[in-house]
Amino acid sequence: MFFASDNSGPVHGQVLDLLTQANQGFAMAYGADDLMDEVRARLRDLFEAPEAAVYLVATGTAANSLALATLSQPWQTVFCTRVAHIHEDECNAPEFYSGGAKLTLVGDGDRMTPADLRSAIEAEETRGVHGPQRGPVSITQVTERGTIYSLDQLNAVTKIAQDHGLPVHMDGARFANALVALGCSPAEMTWKAGVDAVSFGGTKNGCMGVEAVIFFDPKHAWEFELRRKRGAHLFSKHRFLSAQMAAYLKDDLWLTCAQAANAKCARLVDGLRTAGAEFLHESQANMVFAALPRSTHERLFAAGAQYHLWGANLEGDNSEEMLTARFVCDWSISETDIDRFLRLL
Amino acid sequence: MFFASDNSGPVHGQVLDLLTQANQGFAMAYGADDLMDEVRARLRDLFEAPEAAVYLVATGTAANSLALATLSQPWQTVFCTRVAHIHEDECNAPEFYSGGAKLTLVGDGDRMTPADLRSAIEAEETRGVHGPQRGPVSITQVTERGTIYSLDQLNAVTKIAQDHGLPVHMDGARFANALVALGCSPAEMTWKAGVDAVSFGGTKNGCMGVEAVIFFDPKHAWEFELRRKRGAHLFSKHRFLSAQMAAYLKDDLWLTCAQAANAKCARLVDGLRTAGAEFLHESQANMVFAALPRSTHERLFAAGAQYHLWGANLEGDNSEEMLTARFVCDWSISETDIDRFLRLL
Amino acid sequence: MFFASDNSGPVHGQVLDLLTQANQGFAMAYGADDLMDEVRARLRDLFEAPEAAVYLVATGTAANSLALATLSQPWQTVFCTRVAHIHEDECNAPEFYSGGAKLTLVGDGDRMTPADLRSAIEAEETRGVHGPQRGPVSITQVTERGTIYSLDQLNAVTKIAQDHGLPVHMDGARFANALVALGCSPAEMTWKAGVDAVSFGGTKNGCMGVEAVIFFDPKHAWEFELRRKRGAHLFSKHRFLSAQMAAYLKDDLWLTCAQAANAKCARLVDGLRTAGAEFLHESQANMVFAALPRSTHERLFAAGAQYHLWGANLEGDNSEEMLTARFVCDWSISETDIDRFLRLL
Amino acid sequence: MFFASDNSGPVHGQVLDLLTQANQGFAMAYGADDLMDEVRARLRDLFEAPEAAVYLVATGTAANSLALATLSQPWQTVFCTRVAHIHEDECNAPEFYSGGAKLTLVGDGDRMTPADLRSAIEAEETRGVHGPQRGPVSITQVTERGTIYSLDQLNAVTKIAQDHGLPVHMDGARFANALVALGCSPAEMTWKAGVDAVSFGGTKNGCMGVEAVIFFDPKHAWEFELRRKRGAHLFSKHRFLSAQMAAYLKDDLWLTCAQAANAKCARLVDGLRTAGAEFLHESQANMVFAALPRSTHERLFAAGAQYHLWGANLEGDNSEEMLTARFVCDWSISETDIDRFLRLL
Repeated sequence: MFFASDNSGPVHGQVLDLLTQANQGFAMAYGADDLMDEVRARLRDLFEAPEAAVYLVATGTAANSLALATLSQPWQTVFCTRVAHIHEDECNAPEFYSGGAKLTLVGDGDRMTPADLRSAIEAEETRGVHGPQRGPVSITQVTERGTIYSLDQLNAVTKIAQDHGLPVHMDGARFANALVALGCSPAEMTWKAGVDAVSFGGTKNGCMGVEAVIFFDPKHAWEFELRRKRGAHLFSKHRFLSAQMAAYLKDDLWLTCAQAANAKCARLVDGLRTAGAEFLHESQANMVFAALPRSTHERLFAAGAQYHLWGANLEGDNSEEMLTARFVCDWSISETDIDRFLRLL
Repeated sequence: MFFASDNSGPVHGQVLDLLTQANQGFAMAYGADDLMDEVRARLRDLFEAPEAAVYLVATGTAANSLALATLSQPWQTVFCTRVAHIHEDECNAPEFYSGGAKLTLVGDGDRMTPADLRSAIEAEETRGVHGPQRGPVSITQVTERGTIYSLDQLNAVTKIAQDHGLPVHMDGARFANALVALGCSPAEMTWKAGVDAVSFGGTKNGCMGVEAVIFFDPKHAWEFELRRKRGAHLFSKHRFLSAQMAAYLKDDLWLTCAQAANAKCARLVDGLRTAGAEFLHESQANMVFAALPRSTHERLFAAGAQYHLWGANLEGDNSEEMLTARFVCDWSISETDIDRFLRLL
Repeated sequence: MFFASDNSGPVHGQVLDLLTQANQGFAMAYGADDLMDEVRARLRDLFEAPEAAVYLVATGTAANSLALATLSQPWQTVFCTRVAHIHEDECNAPEFYSGGAKLTLVGDGDRMTPADLRSAIEAEETRGVHGPQRGPVSITQVTERGTIYSLDQLNAVTKIAQDHGLPVHMDGARFANALVALGCSPAEMTWKAGVDAVSFGGTKNGCMGVEAVIFFDPKHAWEFELRRKRGAHLFSKHRFLSAQMAAYLKDDLWLTCAQAANAKCARLVDGLRTAGAEFLHESQANMVFAALPRSTHERLFAAGAQYHLWGANLEGDNSEEMLTARFVCDWSISETDIDRFLRLL
Repeated sequence: MFFASDNSGPVHGQVLDLLTQANQGFAMAYGADDLMDEVRARLRDLFEAPEAAVYLVATGTAANSLALATLSQPWQTVFCTRVAHIHEDECNAPEFYSGGAKLTLVGDGDRMTPADLRSAIEAEETRGVHGPQRGPVSITQVTERGTIYSLDQLNAVTKIAQDHGLPVHMDGARFANALVALGCSPAEMTWKAGVDAVSFGGTKNGCMGVEAVIFFDPKHAWEFELRRKRGAHLFSKHRFLSAQMAAYLKDDLWLTCAQAANAKCARLVDGLRTAGAEFLHESQANMVFAALPRSTHERLFAAGAQYHLWGANLEGDNSEEMLTARFVCDWSISETDIDRFLRLL
């Protein structure tokens, strides 16, 4: 009954198998391995972007920070929501990698609206050289609240960025979960929707530790390579990153895992709804924020369920007070576990 | 016949086995996994340092840069040799992580002497607030030229650092290769010899991508954790770093691999000597710099040998001109391969 | 009729006189001049802080950024209001000098309330190593909206900072204007109210370009000196900074100028009120935000008045629409000018 | 008898006069003052560079660091001599402003030779993404040892930079002293000789604290403005920087002062030679490094002479040991003082 995060699950067997297969003899270091050629070709194909620059790193924070640093200047500000991972969960890594850029928080919700973004952009840079300059817009898909930008919402937001000449980055730590929910193509959810660079996550969805960074305009390639090396994120035994990503992409494993995770979350949501939980956001992928009475949480924790209360804690007298919790379903969680949890509920 | 580097070989089977075993169900993320507790305990034990702060990262550059950043201030200068990896091969990562510290190059050789170091230290900071301030001393053991500081040499150098109140970092990307060559204990080669922090390498010696950073004074612990996270080097599925290191340390695998690599290099050196090669440095671990005639290199490359010429290239008319090359023996290279190479020679 | 800013006026004659007097022969460079000794002693005396570390720089942004960098770590966040100069008007200088710290915007108003600050502090660092860590609180006195924290308000806010162990910085670009308005002592408005470091402005109040940075705890002294030099803000011919500040402090010139500026602003406010202006904030020092009809602004600009519309512009059809403008009174503006402006009104 | 530095002398009367004249009423802030228009036009004219981007800052370190940051990337290395001010005397400001670039020390002398530079450039970046990338070349004219690159020497060095596609910066803290010594035009000593950006010093030659930064290619203009503001080097009351530079350029004051300083130094050198001093470098501008017996130094210091021993100190028994000292002649030093010093000698 582990719903604490999708960053704690096991590696999919096919990933481990390919990693094991890749462990034969010597291989060129630093990304010159043959498997990386495969990965690059496969991602370009998947994204219908034959010129795209494609790189691998081992953490989502590295993917986001290096991508944003490449798209920005130190005197700029990056536009993101106030719940963005780059703002709340990366210990100032974007500020570090960008050389001191600022983050401007857009709107109050889980997703930014076009109006929010326009308003935030227009509030900056009315002071010439004095204020922070406008920099990239970073969109999280799936958002940190388990919701998804529809293609229309996405296009509406990137339109505002384009109107102001600003590049768009997508934090796709849960890219696959969003894609299968929307039922669209990777190109439709990225460059066709105005996205310039994407952090394409593998770690949370069956890999060990690998994220691709994709720039649809290859002019960023060499700068990114230098930033990755300078950031100490270039692996010598790079084939073991390549192998993870190659297995992840092979036979649509990435989509299969995401579908599994989303389906399990839907099962969980159904059960929570039946049990009278109140939902903070519509659960559109593999994560749900639900409020349950304090006493219920106490019972669940006592029975061994693992998840995080969200802005709340168990201390307090009112056993019926509703406390919000975040539940995340990893691809690997079993239906048995979910059902056991729901029975407890 | 792969002598290009020890960063290109396979992962040792025992490492892969433990990694596979670790792939069961959910595990606490971000270093809170049980295997990390084992690793920490084992390294503290090995180093006879029960209070040491112990962390894992995935690349040697990350280990070095984060360790040095923790030991220094942005207005300081780090003392290292001119062939140090931190100077030549990290694309300014130490400067980046330290926030703009300088590197002062000490001496002209593969190792710094106490006299070199004293002279370099005393040349800095005679200008009060104007010049760079004196910062940590970074020693590479095994050096980038395949040589090793004896314990006496090490103590003599760290004595100079201590005399000036400067902390000492050891870049131990090939820590195990040095240790087995010296036949001393980890403590003797580090804190007993005046070393404050060590990058303890696994990647080049049988692992996939893991390095420990050890501070003998735990006061650096929390700052290092923040720097690691901010640098995007904190792994969510950390157990797979832990598993590598746990397997590496188990049953002295790390020593076994290093002994193998050193022994193979010795075999290679013997053969090279017999073949009339000239040596630039005494080969003390798993690396040798040897000069051979251009025509010999041509023959070897044609036969499929892989290694790097060093400050030389094949272009040129004189087939008897001696060109230096670097040969590195990984733990995994077979004696058959070495012997085949020597027969070609 | 210049109300655009207090950064555009002339230098007071007494400042220029002392600067001229100081221009005799050779003087020790880099802050070792005799006048600096006087300035240091005088400021320590004024602030009843005999141990304080006292430095001079030439711009307010330098004073703020260097002070905050000294009080913070790169992985922290600085708490300030959303209208703070450090956030809106320094082109990411605080982020640059701090090595990539974040700014957390507190509340929505011109001043932060204790509740705002507590809420902002408690929202940060609930995520251990993942989120930004809590750093210094920066308070602007006079605020960027022309209002002033009363001593009670100040103490209430710094109390929250102290409760969380956070240092407090005061951006006192208009320190003198606030002090004369409150009628308290420098110590009461700073260290007795829980302020650890202050940017003590001279430039906007009769000087040419000089700000003091004062740390009440001298432990920050040497780090600040290194940061100032590394930031290229250490003047060789430092006596000309010292002379400005010495003249500014002599015979209470700083207070005289501030009283003049505040009094002129009060006269302006009275006139604006009579003319039917609407005020956005209570004008407590030398600055006022007032809304007037579009047609009035057109008439005033046409007659040569200089000031900034605030979040508004002259384009539009409705001549009676109220547009807000910022009016700032410098110590040097003449009553004649103000009265001429008011007659135009 | 003040020969300690040319950063400690008074401001020329004409500079102070224009500064005083400029102190009338309100003036546009932040470089939009009329005097800056004059300065820009005058410098473009002097340098025969009608498109040049021209800016003012208050310190030489700011001029150098901001210019180099604009010409470089954080993963590059800047080529300079080991006695360069940017290396020895700026407390890592170039590293700070560039975001962590490295400095590669070229040659061993006071000036770099083309061979030194080629060798240093070719030693870098043979490692692809791993090593620091080649960045700008920074030349100091007058050098820190009082010598001057002839136009031929200058052209030969910049030719090497151009061959490798590297921009060239000139640290001209003593630009005027070099120019009058060479008897060439500003254009000949800069862009006609392959220099892309120059720090054009005023502070050491009669000003209070002002340096121009000139980019011959205006494409750098906006980036420089943002870097200057972010570095806290944009003055609000900018007219007082403009006034200094305007006075400095008016009626060739800058050349007059430099000629005076050089002539006085020549007088000093003659006297030192007569007295048996040994010279370390040919004195070509306003600075000389001369060795005198310990006993002579003791006598001179006792009589009130002020200058710096260079890598030597008075402690020691041998009164006849030759100790090197640096003597700098400021434009303002009187011949009487020099003669008094020479008599003492």
